[in-house]
Amino acid sequence: MTTDFHEHEFTIRLHDTDAAGLLFFGHLFRHAHDAFEAFMDMIGFPVDLMIRDGRMLLPLTHAEADYRRPLRHGDSVRVRVSVLEIRRRSFAIGYRFIDHLGEVAATARTVHVEVSADIAPVMDLSESLRLALSAYLADDAHTS
Amino acid sequence: MTTDFHEHEFTIRLHDTDAAGLLFFGHLFRHAHDAFEAFMDMIGFPVDLMIRDGRMLLPLTHAEADYRRPLRHGDSVRVRVSVLEIRRRSFAIGYRFIDHLGEVAATARTVHVEVSADIAPVMDLSESLRLALSAYLADDAHTS
Amino acid sequence: MTTDFHEHEFTIRLHDTDAAGLLFFGHLFRHAHDAFEAFMDMIGFPVDLMIRDGRMLLPLTHAEADYRRPLRHGDSVRVRVSVLEIRRRSFAIGYRFIDHLGEVAATARTVHVEVSADIAPVMDLSESLRLALSAYLADDAHTS
Amino acid sequence: MTTDFHEHEFTIRLHDTDAAGLLFFGHLFRHAHDAFEAFMDMIGFPVDLMIRDGRMLLPLTHAEADYRRPLRHGDSVRVRVSVLEIRRRSFAIGYRFIDHLGEVAATARTVHVEVSADIAPVMDLSESLRLALSAYLADDAHTS
Repeated sequence: MTTDFHEHEFTIRLHDTDAAGLLFFGHLFRHAHDAFEAFMDMIGFPVDLMIRDGRMLLPLTHAEADYRRPLRHGDSVRVRVSVLEIRRRSFAIGYRFIDHLGEVAATARTVHVEVSADIAPVMDLSESLRLALSAYLADDAHTS
Repeated sequence: MTTDFHEHEFTIRLHDTDAAGLLFFGHLFRHAHDAFEAFMDMIGFPVDLMIRDGRMLLPLTHAEADYRRPLRHGDSVRVRVSVLEIRRRSFAIGYRFIDHLGEVAATARTVHVEVSADIAPVMDLSESLRLALSAYLADDAHTS
Repeated sequence: MTTDFHEHEFTIRLHDTDAAGLLFFGHLFRHAHDAFEAFMDMIGFPVDLMIRDGRMLLPLTHAEADYRRPLRHGDSVRVRVSVLEIRRRSFAIGYRFIDHLGEVAATARTVHVEVSADIAPVMDLSESLRLALSAYLADDAHTS
Repeated sequence: MTTDFHEHEFTIRLHDTDAAGLLFFGHLFRHAHDAFEAFMDMIGFPVDLMIRDGRMLLPLTHAEADYRRPLRHGDSVRVRVSVLEIRRRSFAIGYRFIDHLGEVAATARTVHVEVSADIAPVMDLSESLRLALSAYLADDAHTS
């Protein structure tokens, strides 16, 4: 599939760094979620409207990141978003953080479950959401 | 008045600092609001319940801070909270950040206006809130 | 002067909001500083290089903001940066946050002092910095 | 072993929450690192001094969290820190976030590698650090 990722860019700003001079690890998740929101906007499921309407919420049940290369103040970073897995009532999003040398500086993964307005898990992912996510499923991923 | 301040303590942690090795200025406001919430808990107006109930909200209309001495990673800081001013429909809270040497490292001020659940400004501060705040009014402050 | 501002754009993302559903006031300063860094990049004084080199630092001595209109999750915001004042050893930067309706949702101001690598205040702003800032001085501002 | 954890407490404050009314997932890592720093203070390896001295740094190579129960604005949370694993040149720290009902609301894990001042990985963890960590190794953990 040709369109297996969405790309989001940002610069490491002063508040992203800490006294050790590099990105504070926890802030990577803030940038991952920015990329997630931009991705969801693109596929027609804007997170802000979903929360405001309260019909469908996608809370995280898991988040993780691997840090491979230091990210410094001023570095430009591109985030490549892809859908790693689609399960019955949850899905996993992958993030690759590419530094200005084209190297993967970090990767991250978030798992989201669909819940209804009363925070009860749904039986199955909404069909429209499943369809929208499927178009960005990574080639080596699998649905269930 | 003997009880003109409430004290809140915290330590400058890694995520508070930036690549220059000191507290990132914007994070001072996060700590100020932590102290504000602890103060509001103490005087019987917990911010979390107020937001959940939606009866009364106290959004900020102004915030400011002066930075006098550097705050470094690992520093212990005490925040002294006082009520600087009570006006017809708003009030100002003052914060003094005292470092481990007993010096004032920074000061801050936030102005809050009372609004009803539909975000319309109220005519007058709730009488119970005015009373609760008054007990912590700084000696040199004045109401209107 | 025609070029009295630099414009920076961002979207209010989930982590910018709080349980009251609006931008958490303290995060406005993070966005202001992002705009400041983009501005400093543009005028040839990138903050990341200045910190790395340690020759010249521009710590804040003051920050303030006024909140006029609510900023909600998903809102697009443009930040207009201008130089408000140039003094002997310090300068003030102004920020106007324009919402998607073209209204000023918030304003902010930061005051920066130039210090040398050993954190001692300099006698005078570097001439090159003074010159670079001057080109963006707001029409109604004044130097000293 | 009786002392297999260190406990750290905090309250979910307004800036921890997002428009969905719950803890923003990324902020859990900020609290985890606060607990890590308090733990390292206790065992005699204060992170702030280590960064200032630059002799030994402990950057993260991995971080992950599982979210089990919602954490709301105003909730008191206790964090239990333990050492999950000690390897040749890295170690893993575990965090259990206990809510006011005594339930585990979230768990997290961070992996740290020891590097020298020039950011080169060391051959082996410092013996003094290995010893200090060992005293807090969870009963079901293992060294290598």
